[in-house]
Amino acid sequence: MNYDEVVKLALERGFYFPSCEVYGDAQAGFWEYGPSGVSLKNKFVELWRRELIRRDAMMEIDGSQIMSGSVFEASGHLASFADPITRCEKCGLTVRADKAIEEISNVTIPESAEPAEFDAAISENDIRCPKCGGQFSGTERFNMMFKVGIGPEQKAAYLRPETCQSIFVDFPRLFKSMRGRLPVGVGQIGKSFRNEIAPRQGLLRLREFYQAEIEVFCNPGKLDDVPNFAEVENTMLNLQVADGYDAAIQTVSCSDAVQAGLLPSRLVAYYLGLLAEFYEKTGIDMSKSRFRKLGQKEKAFYAEVAFDFEVEVSTGWLELVACNYRSGHDLSGHAKQSGEKFEVMDGEQKVLPHVFEISMGIDRSLYTILEHSLTRDAEHDDRTVLSLRPYLAPVHVGVLSLVKKDGLREKTDEIYRTIRRKCDAFLDHSGAIGRRYRRLDEVGAPFAITVDHQTLQDQTVTIRRRDSMEQSRIPISEIDGVIAEHIAYP
Amino acid sequence: MNYDEVVKLALERGFYFPSCEVYGDAQAGFWEYGPSGVSLKNKFVELWRRELIRRDAMMEIDGSQIMSGSVFEASGHLASFADPITRCEKCGLTVRADKAIEEISNVTIPESAEPAEFDAAISENDIRCPKCGGQFSGTERFNMMFKVGIGPEQKAAYLRPETCQSIFVDFPRLFKSMRGRLPVGVGQIGKSFRNEIAPRQGLLRLREFYQAEIEVFCNPGKLDDVPNFAEVENTMLNLQVADGYDAAIQTVSCSDAVQAGLLPSRLVAYYLGLLAEFYEKTGIDMSKSRFRKLGQKEKAFYAEVAFDFEVEVSTGWLELVACNYRSGHDLSGHAKQSGEKFEVMDGEQKVLPHVFEISMGIDRSLYTILEHSLTRDAEHDDRTVLSLRPYLAPVHVGVLSLVKKDGLREKTDEIYRTIRRKCDAFLDHSGAIGRRYRRLDEVGAPFAITVDHQTLQDQTVTIRRRDSMEQSRIPISEIDGVIAEHIAYP
Repeated sequence: MNYDEVVKLALERGFYFPSCEVYGDAQAGFWEYGPSGVSLKNKFVELWRRELIRRDAMMEIDGSQIMSGSVFEASGHLASFADPITRCEKCGLTVRADKAIEEISNVTIPESAEPAEFDAAISENDIRCPKCGGQFSGTERFNMMFKVGIGPEQKAAYLRPETCQSIFVDFPRLFKSMRGRLPVGVGQIGKSFRNEIAPRQGLLRLREFYQAEIEVFCNPGKLDDVPNFAEVENTMLNLQVADGYDAAIQTVSCSDAVQAGLLPSRLVAYYLGLLAEFYEKTGIDMSKSRFRKLGQKEKAFYAEVAFDFEVEVSTGWLELVACNYRSGHDLSGHAKQSGEKFEVMDGEQKVLPHVFEISMGIDRSLYTILEHSLTRDAEHDDRTVLSLRPYLAPVHVGVLSLVKKDGLREKTDEIYRTIRRKCDAFLDHSGAIGRRYRRLDEVGAPFAITVDHQTLQDQTVTIRRRDSMEQSRIPISEIDGVIAEHIAYP
Repeated sequence: MNYDEVVKLALERGFYFPSCEVYGDAQAGFWEYGPSGVSLKNKFVELWRRELIRRDAMMEIDGSQIMSGSVFEASGHLASFADPITRCEKCGLTVRADKAIEEISNVTIPESAEPAEFDAAISENDIRCPKCGGQFSGTERFNMMFKVGIGPEQKAAYLRPETCQSIFVDFPRLFKSMRGRLPVGVGQIGKSFRNEIAPRQGLLRLREFYQAEIEVFCNPGKLDDVPNFAEVENTMLNLQVADGYDAAIQTVSCSDAVQAGLLPSRLVAYYLGLLAEFYEKTGIDMSKSRFRKLGQKEKAFYAEVAFDFEVEVSTGWLELVACNYRSGHDLSGHAKQSGEKFEVMDGEQKVLPHVFEISMGIDRSLYTILEHSLTRDAEHDDRTVLSLRPYLAPVHVGVLSLVKKDGLREKTDEIYRTIRRKCDAFLDHSGAIGRRYRRLDEVGAPFAITVDHQTLQDQTVTIRRRDSMEQSRIPISEIDGVIAEHIAYP
């Protein structure tokens, strides 16, 4: 299904919708999760915790979103985290120079290029304002951090543009108080903020967005010393290491990838393996995924080696995770700026840890799960079915009364009350039963339970399965067990 | 235990610590959760979902933190959400006028009073700058919202000062797409931001903080028509309805409170009852709690009737939840400002819903849970024990090897790997066993499992209970069951 169909479902079934939509001054790039979206997101996050944080005994923190200026001086964001922008001299329209050049002339200039390169391309390709045809003025850098003023003195601080900065700044305390040992992963889930020039619609490019970031602190001298590597050695990765966006993709095991020199170390291969196993369990079509090695000009300013985990959706390849080997950039920057010590002991050796980062976009991941799960069932009236993995479904089971009278409403309420604390149940008494089933299909509920007159006689209900539409009768006493078995995390 | 002891524990055991602490420009009022804090918070939130959202079939949303100016024009925050501040004419120190007057002269002036009232009190009581003795200039209002500029045009928007505004703005879409019926609760968990003049240390008054807010939309003509009222009719509340901070507290059932006219409606009594049942399960000492009815001048500008749920901690009474009957203030404000329709059908009647709000501070609640759970065990070497309810404990079980050699490390690792996905387990091989137990006591782990030489012989381990320090041997195969039984939510 395509982008528009996903958005239609999202709006109609409470997955997500624009923020402040009743107001004319609502700004692009801000969306919110409705009840179905919150439930899906919480389950996705729980899977992330199980498959990455807990599996690998990582720490998880939850830091402030507003951070001091010093943090971003040290990180380089105050100097380098800026988009190239250019303004129309006639109508004042401001656009991202790289995007405008690409859209109008098909010429690609990396966003990290110098302003003069954009100006040259604008002039060579005669790029004009798409609105009024006016000329663009010189390209400038626009810093994408949101600035806030603290207290009556309005001291400058910033909304974090990535969650990882608190992980770096907190590292000395965490390592000491939690008795850390290298290598150690520290994760964080939370909002980050980027003042994008041209946010795209929907969850694909937001100004306020959710990240799940993991920073692995490691001894740069021991990147092939990974105790649990055997767990992923046979995990398959789709790797695109050659230059060029459309270069060949090789499907190789983590172990072979290291041996063939496609990946720089076992450490990198190990975490790419964990990540691939995680996404497999989200239900994303992994045959449409790749780990793409970024070229020199594409990489973020802090990355030494970078792989993007990308998935093909209806709008093209979409980056879900940036995996960056950030080397000592972060900790040495904060050590220098703060005067604090960031070295730790690794056995007998004092070392400034290097960082390997797994920076996941949650909103984009959820969008991809929705798009890959949304199907139209040609065999059954073209019904729309959201075939989510049962453990990710916003609603696990719909609890329906065939009719409201004859005591069926009360019996249905009773069944609902007994199961609602064990799983996500949705009680529904009204409307034609077929339409109620369709709504449950659209929200991805793997099961529906229907209470009818026979229920009052023999204490059985009809259980209907979302994907097969198969219906069978089971005793009320077995409902719990059947559902629990299917919604358990793998 | 007192405030300082809680903070000491928080810093040493990874519950919470100051944000950006390595930097000199770190600002007061920003703290972060370490691994133990994140785990405790997640479990607290899950309990909130079980006891309030799911129990009552409420909806939950997750909205943007940055919201348009129109939202806060409609809500009244742009005009009214401001603290009275006054500046020292000599040294420039800026203070909250109400706080300075109270601390220096013990005279209480409500924060919502007119600037002239503060100026009069400052002059009458000869309030001087506590730093330099200088005179204060006239009191002004300082708006506590953080402003941000969106896009290169820097369009004004604001970090939300309360999570509820997205619930109000989204109400028409939610009610329609989720097929709502009055009364219906909509909840949200997330960050809110207030540019406090004088944030207190720790989690008690933050500039960036977590709220769990529930807005109940109801028909103002049917406030005594609450279908599930019977569920809470015998739930006891500590009510303080008479004027005065130290007035008498009456302990009455929800049902009696309505009949005696202590609470204005069954609807209000019902939700206060749910809230009391929730906090009972957090392990807070409910004999130290009260629902205090606020006087006219104390209430927030939007509240018609207001009850604060307060709990006594070592620093005094602490407000954990504000329960406000906000009447039609919010929806009529947004309807007027946006031109959208906010009325809905309740049966045959078209109605603009009124709002009853349950606005919970998560950070303060967690602080209170920690303070009320932290004890010194005089019978056992004055050990520090954090007697959290098992389902809230950051670590459910410590998994320890008595010594690392003789294959005990490997056996311990094996047991750890089998239980780490079923509960929060912490593997610990190093240090004296007694010290490892103490650390687990301090982080609130209800169980510790120790693997010794006998384990290799007969496949049993020692299980130690946190509160009683009782130790017994159980087969490895029973570990799962024993722990699962105790850590299940009630």
